Amino acid sequence: MSDKPFILIANDDGIHAPGIQALARAVRQIADITVVAPATEMSAVGHAITLSDPLRVCEYSLDHEFFGYAVSGTPSDCVKIAYWALLDRKPDMIISGINLGPNTGINTIYSGTVSAATEGAILGIPSFAISLGTYQKPDFTFAAKFACKLVPILLKNKLPEGVFLNVNIPPCKEEEIRGVKITRQGKAIYKENFDKRSDPHGRTYYWLTGDKMDPEPDLDIDDGAMAQNYVAITPAHYDLTCYGFMDDLKKWVFE
Amino acid sequence: MSDKPFILIANDDGIHAPGIQALARAVRQIADITVVAPATEMSAVGHAITLSDPLRVCEYSLDHEFFGYAVSGTPSDCVKIAYWALLDRKPDMIISGINLGPNTGINTIYSGTVSAATEGAILGIPSFAISLGTYQKPDFTFAAKFACKLVPILLKNKLPEGVFLNVNIPPCKEEEIRGVKITRQGKAIYKENFDKRSDPHGRTYYWLTGDKMDPEPDLDIDDGAMAQNYVAITPAHYDLTCYGFMDDLKKWVFE
Repeated sequence: MSDKPFILIANDDGIHAPGIQALARAVRQIADITVVAPATEMSAVGHAITLSDPLRVCEYSLDHEFFGYAVSGTPSDCVKIAYWALLDRKPDMIISGINLGPNTGINTIYSGTVSAATEGAILGIPSFAISLGTYQKPDFTFAAKFACKLVPILLKNKLPEGVFLNVNIPPCKEEEIRGVKITRQGKAIYKENFDKRSDPHGRTYYWLTGDKMDPEPDLDIDDGAMAQNYVAITPAHYDLTCYGFMDDLKKWVFE
Repeated sequence: MSDKPFILIANDDGIHAPGIQALARAVRQIADITVVAPATEMSAVGHAITLSDPLRVCEYSLDHEFFGYAVSGTPSDCVKIAYWALLDRKPDMIISGINLGPNTGINTIYSGTVSAATEGAILGIPSFAISLGTYQKPDFTFAAKFACKLVPILLKNKLPEGVFLNVNIPPCKEEEIRGVKITRQGKAIYKENFDKRSDPHGRTYYWLTGDKMDPEPDLDIDDGAMAQNYVAITPAHYDLTCYGFMDDLKKWVFE
């Protein structure tokens, strides 16, 4: 067994996606890796897991070489089946990405990429999600490099129990990156629109579109930091309890 | 227009589920309601939204009367399409449930029922998810009654921005209910198991099962309170930022 760290790589764009392939190619220079990713695109699946259907696992090759396992499920399924059924040892780290498009603000809760890192935190494994803040002509080079840089940092420093990192990379040129900001999840919401259409058989269907309204410009917010060419790193957890409201809620009269 | 509150009802078990039907029958005694729920079961879909496919909406009847709209999507899709496309006015409240099975502890993040209430909080509408803590011979009577009791309480008292309530009802008899506890999300995790099987064509598939390990018994924890026959109410939000770790993370050296 090598003395390199052993890293599980997942995503939500699917095992075919350029982002995970760029990540895997970079990280395998510094670590032993196994890729376990959805067989098809699973964007915006949130923290879905597959309970009602069986999961299939196929070996997936790239450039005539074994690249990893394609799973007929969600990003959470991928991490779970990797950990509990496919891998013969516990990973030292889980990296999810590189996502095509930002996972900032409210997008965080819809993101399958983030959910894979969440599964890592649930399992007590140092984990991060990494996303590139653009859908246009993505260049994953710097994001992949930054992921490699983060590996030893995350192995050396300890995350608290149940915490993972949500990393967003600005889509600018590498020389324009201004540094790293530790951020919180932005609160800007979407104005949704359901495009109402008629299918070739005359039946109505709807298609969701939406625009994020007023992303906050502050440097301590994920959207704001990224917009100003900083790498935004948000420490995140999966405890949804709003502790700050518990005492007030206790004063409500329920009886 | 009546002076009753207008309440949107959703769930993740689907519009056919006994839980949502019990909820709707009870709540329509005290409110004007519209039901918008998944056409099929959508348990454990987490906060998934449908971006890659169109959504279909069908009117659904029960006992020869219009009951609501069945949507070919997830619980989050249901709330979004109700709010942005189907309803002609803003609901005063969103209730999601009654879920078959508890949404306590880690289940909270996988729950479509909870995600519908989250969508309500995102939209700034007072919202709660309500779940019955059993899968066996469910009797939704008390849970539906409790939901009705919660409506005026939630209209009178104000939730902070972005906060909703996650309510879990113990599966005991009504006379055995000991009261209400304000709780936090439990931290007990699952020991997962992937049952490896062979299909009729000799191909391998996996099926996820799992058991929650060591649910915490404390009365201030959702699982613990429910186990001791208290209604567990957890105030929840969708900001995943781990604020308590931000200052420490700023000390890490990233450059």
